[in-house]
Amino acid sequence: MSVIRVGLVGYGYWGPNLLRNFQNNPGFKVVAVADGRAEKRDKISRAAPDAAIYDRGEDLIDATDVDAVVIATQVGYHYPLAKRALSLGKHVLCEKPLCTRVEDAEDLVETAAANNAVLMIDHTFLFTGAVQTIAALCQSGELGKISYYDSIRINLGLFQPDVNVMWDLLPHDLAIIDYLIEEELVHVEAQGYCHVNNGVPDIVYATLYYPHSFIAHLNLSWMSPVKVRRTAVGGLKKMLVWNDLDKEEKIKIYNSGIAIQPETVREIIIPSYRIGDIYSPRIPDTEALAGVVAHFNSVIRSETKSIILNPAVERSWRWRSGLL
Amino acid sequence: MSVIRVGLVGYGYWGPNLLRNFQNNPGFKVVAVADGRAEKRDKISRAAPDAAIYDRGEDLIDATDVDAVVIATQVGYHYPLAKRALSLGKHVLCEKPLCTRVEDAEDLVETAAANNAVLMIDHTFLFTGAVQTIAALCQSGELGKISYYDSIRINLGLFQPDVNVMWDLLPHDLAIIDYLIEEELVHVEAQGYCHVNNGVPDIVYATLYYPHSFIAHLNLSWMSPVKVRRTAVGGLKKMLVWNDLDKEEKIKIYNSGIAIQPETVREIIIPSYRIGDIYSPRIPDTEALAGVVAHFNSVIRSETKSIILNPAVERSWRWRSGLL
Amino acid sequence: MSVIRVGLVGYGYWGPNLLRNFQNNPGFKVVAVADGRAEKRDKISRAAPDAAIYDRGEDLIDATDVDAVVIATQVGYHYPLAKRALSLGKHVLCEKPLCTRVEDAEDLVETAAANNAVLMIDHTFLFTGAVQTIAALCQSGELGKISYYDSIRINLGLFQPDVNVMWDLLPHDLAIIDYLIEEELVHVEAQGYCHVNNGVPDIVYATLYYPHSFIAHLNLSWMSPVKVRRTAVGGLKKMLVWNDLDKEEKIKIYNSGIAIQPETVREIIIPSYRIGDIYSPRIPDTEALAGVVAHFNSVIRSETKSIILNPAVERSWRWRSGLL
Amino acid sequence: MSVIRVGLVGYGYWGPNLLRNFQNNPGFKVVAVADGRAEKRDKISRAAPDAAIYDRGEDLIDATDVDAVVIATQVGYHYPLAKRALSLGKHVLCEKPLCTRVEDAEDLVETAAANNAVLMIDHTFLFTGAVQTIAALCQSGELGKISYYDSIRINLGLFQPDVNVMWDLLPHDLAIIDYLIEEELVHVEAQGYCHVNNGVPDIVYATLYYPHSFIAHLNLSWMSPVKVRRTAVGGLKKMLVWNDLDKEEKIKIYNSGIAIQPETVREIIIPSYRIGDIYSPRIPDTEALAGVVAHFNSVIRSETKSIILNPAVERSWRWRSGLL
Repeated sequence: MSVIRVGLVGYGYWGPNLLRNFQNNPGFKVVAVADGRAEKRDKISRAAPDAAIYDRGEDLIDATDVDAVVIATQVGYHYPLAKRALSLGKHVLCEKPLCTRVEDAEDLVETAAANNAVLMIDHTFLFTGAVQTIAALCQSGELGKISYYDSIRINLGLFQPDVNVMWDLLPHDLAIIDYLIEEELVHVEAQGYCHVNNGVPDIVYATLYYPHSFIAHLNLSWMSPVKVRRTAVGGLKKMLVWNDLDKEEKIKIYNSGIAIQPETVREIIIPSYRIGDIYSPRIPDTEALAGVVAHFNSVIRSETKSIILNPAVERSWRWRSGLL
Repeated sequence: MSVIRVGLVGYGYWGPNLLRNFQNNPGFKVVAVADGRAEKRDKISRAAPDAAIYDRGEDLIDATDVDAVVIATQVGYHYPLAKRALSLGKHVLCEKPLCTRVEDAEDLVETAAANNAVLMIDHTFLFTGAVQTIAALCQSGELGKISYYDSIRINLGLFQPDVNVMWDLLPHDLAIIDYLIEEELVHVEAQGYCHVNNGVPDIVYATLYYPHSFIAHLNLSWMSPVKVRRTAVGGLKKMLVWNDLDKEEKIKIYNSGIAIQPETVREIIIPSYRIGDIYSPRIPDTEALAGVVAHFNSVIRSETKSIILNPAVERSWRWRSGLL
Repeated sequence: MSVIRVGLVGYGYWGPNLLRNFQNNPGFKVVAVADGRAEKRDKISRAAPDAAIYDRGEDLIDATDVDAVVIATQVGYHYPLAKRALSLGKHVLCEKPLCTRVEDAEDLVETAAANNAVLMIDHTFLFTGAVQTIAALCQSGELGKISYYDSIRINLGLFQPDVNVMWDLLPHDLAIIDYLIEEELVHVEAQGYCHVNNGVPDIVYATLYYPHSFIAHLNLSWMSPVKVRRTAVGGLKKMLVWNDLDKEEKIKIYNSGIAIQPETVREIIIPSYRIGDIYSPRIPDTEALAGVVAHFNSVIRSETKSIILNPAVERSWRWRSGLL
Repeated sequence: MSVIRVGLVGYGYWGPNLLRNFQNNPGFKVVAVADGRAEKRDKISRAAPDAAIYDRGEDLIDATDVDAVVIATQVGYHYPLAKRALSLGKHVLCEKPLCTRVEDAEDLVETAAANNAVLMIDHTFLFTGAVQTIAALCQSGELGKISYYDSIRINLGLFQPDVNVMWDLLPHDLAIIDYLIEEELVHVEAQGYCHVNNGVPDIVYATLYYPHSFIAHLNLSWMSPVKVRRTAVGGLKKMLVWNDLDKEEKIKIYNSGIAIQPETVREIIIPSYRIGDIYSPRIPDTEALAGVVAHFNSVIRSETKSIILNPAVERSWRWRSGLL
């Protein structure tokens, strides 16, 4: 396959980053950018002087020289734009959330399949050096059977009128867990608490149950004066702690584990602990969004299977509709 | 009132500490110590050469020269010994847990009241410099209305045959919350998870609901390679973080808070944050058990109201029976 | 005085930052930018479309509509360009180092004075929130008499062919000490050590002596795997530690000090320590270079006395010539 | 050789620890303890009921059933007691400092050699898990050629009438460097600074020069509100940082180093850095003094060469006499 001609719809906060990364990837050529605002089109003309500039995203999508579409508009436009592009057999990379209704998500998944087009969501976090390193550790079996995922994402929040702390912070963990663990989520218990606005939780505790001895717990808050981004992943052989705010030692692997011994006391198994060394691997310091673009390229060219599976999309929206 | 003549029943792990602290407090005179084990009585004779030594705790309790009894035996003996002492109008300081059935606890509370005797549990943690400092901050109103208590007590646990992670670690937080917050617990949601032994949770997440805009959450684990003892207490004016493993700055007070402003967007109140200075008060480095003994002395002499209220005792056992 | 018309000579690494900050300050109007490289002039035309663009800095300096000149060229050009501008009575802000010979620096200082022009060096560090906070603490007397300054600046260095670890890291501390302490440096002892290249020290320890009971010590290294930026400033009443890598608590003030007591043992005064609270003030998060520009503006308008004194310039070069 | 019969002279602060550790080592039998104070002899009788108790150390030393003597008296008695014991061919373990004059130290070394007796100083620090681990790393060559030792020992000091900050803190580093590095110290530069008492430095900076590309620097202070115990040991292959106050990760090994490359720029070698993983080995948590006693046992039995060499003793005293 020759170079993929890509068009970008929406040039707001994230748009310049998307443009730059698609420009830097030799698999793509950015042939068009669309934005309804004149001052944004001005900036586009300086940043992408050889791209066609559109006022309306629909026109960009319909253009015959566009093979793939990146959608970075407000959420309300995601579904109709993605639907239009996929129906024409064009590949779509869409910012998250994909859409606001489960049926719409399912429709997009089916439309993509029917037209043999790739539909991918921009879960940038999965392409960070930290999550890639954790995934490699999980998949290699080095940690042993994974038994828990415990995440703390707390800070003093920026209250927004249309989002609560769960929608602000939980999608990161859901995407990461889906990526690390191959099990299906079977049950969720979540408690939200509103200190400032009724109906807009600013503290949420969520416990996620999975079928085979794995549990996930998320502590999310906009009410903490200290910013914490700390995720522990426990395996029966080793355990790791990912502190995303620690530049020097982002991930620490603890050679501590539990050795089940045959000795029993009153029918209780007495485990022994092996507390050992601590190891902190060097995390590659690459731009995660470059990885997203490279992955989109590989999936379109069928070189790689997507790490962002359609069932995960569907499941995450089932989860949403069930909770709210 | 002259000096209080005290007898100590049980000279195991905690006994020598109790003996030493009662010896050091001028309000008490240790007149008797009891232990069923000969080698313990040997040690007692060296550590308390002028005290009567008993084989059986019952005989010590019955002795006419004993005004108050300290019970530090195995849990199974707590109830009959405390009952015997209280029935004789003798004051009791008992190690925790007080007993294993709600009815027994209620009976002891009633017996104490009927005989005008003091019944106190040794919640040593409440007398640490850290908890005393936090309590003073809560009571002075410096933090504003307390809105949450979030505690993480995780480490690589020592599995014991007759206790799970909840009974190992949760009583500390329950006692502290009861001390700090004057509200009644109305509802508990707790999830336990067993990785090693069925029926013996090694990870427990508990959320405690209170009537007036206060929530508590406890993250307890025996499966964490990193030891964490971190409790956040959030008020609407200030928030504090208590890191019990940090010797230098055990408590940090964050002058960060939420100022509710009258501006509304789509009927949502937009709060503003005041992020400010951080202050770490010097924590007195005193032995907490000395404070327990001094408090027992003051309560017996009616100089102080007990900070360890009978209703709290009762409530904590209701909670237990409801959960297990 | 109306707006100051400023010209910028040199549009390399630091030039765009200088341009942007002068554009943002209403006291200045950027009327001209000079750079000898065509591709830089291209960028200038986009970033400053209404400024005159020069190939040669000399022409910019001679232009009659230029009141002040910012010099951000290679070091070798600093002296002749600054000399030319000051001789014409134009104010000069020069990147550091001002020049490479003491006599040149002295000549510039005299030229500035003779022509009633301001000569300022861009010591950006002095305008950071951290150093501003430390200076305010020193000047208010809150720390008491300042007795020591101890700085550690170590990391894995980027070896450069024309600079050693001292020239890379020491100027920061010299400028800060000159700013904080009003005493004259009287003596320096410095030891350099070359592990990689003979004649190019990669570890330097320097001790600076001052007349009135103040000492400074600098530990500079390109051979440390851990990056440390930690400066302690000790006063007889309080002491502070500035950890420039700690985002949350950049400065901690220790309410600990020494109380000289009249008790003496064998003619030795026994001091007692007051170990107290720790306080971490909120550091304003502003761009330091904006402060440099604002300061240059105020000094030109005679609203403020310069914090970067001429004697300090001279002294620092005496120091250099003495050492190398 | 059968069991070594040992006598302990001095039962002050450190005496009980020495007694307990010698009692626990099966190579020794504590046959005698001496102390001039009656109340100490009382305690000795309870702690060592089967040992002979002496008033005067000289009598203990002369006793025919004593093979080895441990000297833990005030410093002024060290030399005459050690001299007496060594002259009788008895092995000596002496607390530090061995004595106060170089000639006395040299005389003891010669007396020990002449009588074929072991003379050892109790450098407990060398037997900690941390220093043992560092020594193993240095000796195995894992760090490469050791190029620097940089130690920070600062805290708020306890001023003592007869000691300054150097004598309080520097002996630890001297003993450790002597243990790690096989080179002879050739030159010392040290600056002391007195804030509180003239003639009693409370801040000392010392730089130690060695012949073959190794440098040591010590930053010692009684004037720091923050306690720091941080030692970096740099090798050309790897570097390590020992933070003695960090319980969890006392030693971190950085897989960072310098690769000298053949490329040169203006006759300067441009090195490249390999910044890599961080590894924190588990440090055995054993009592260091038990290791001292075991080592004394092995050296007496000629199983091991002493790690505390006589020349080091002599050298450290030359150093002292030169400085003061």
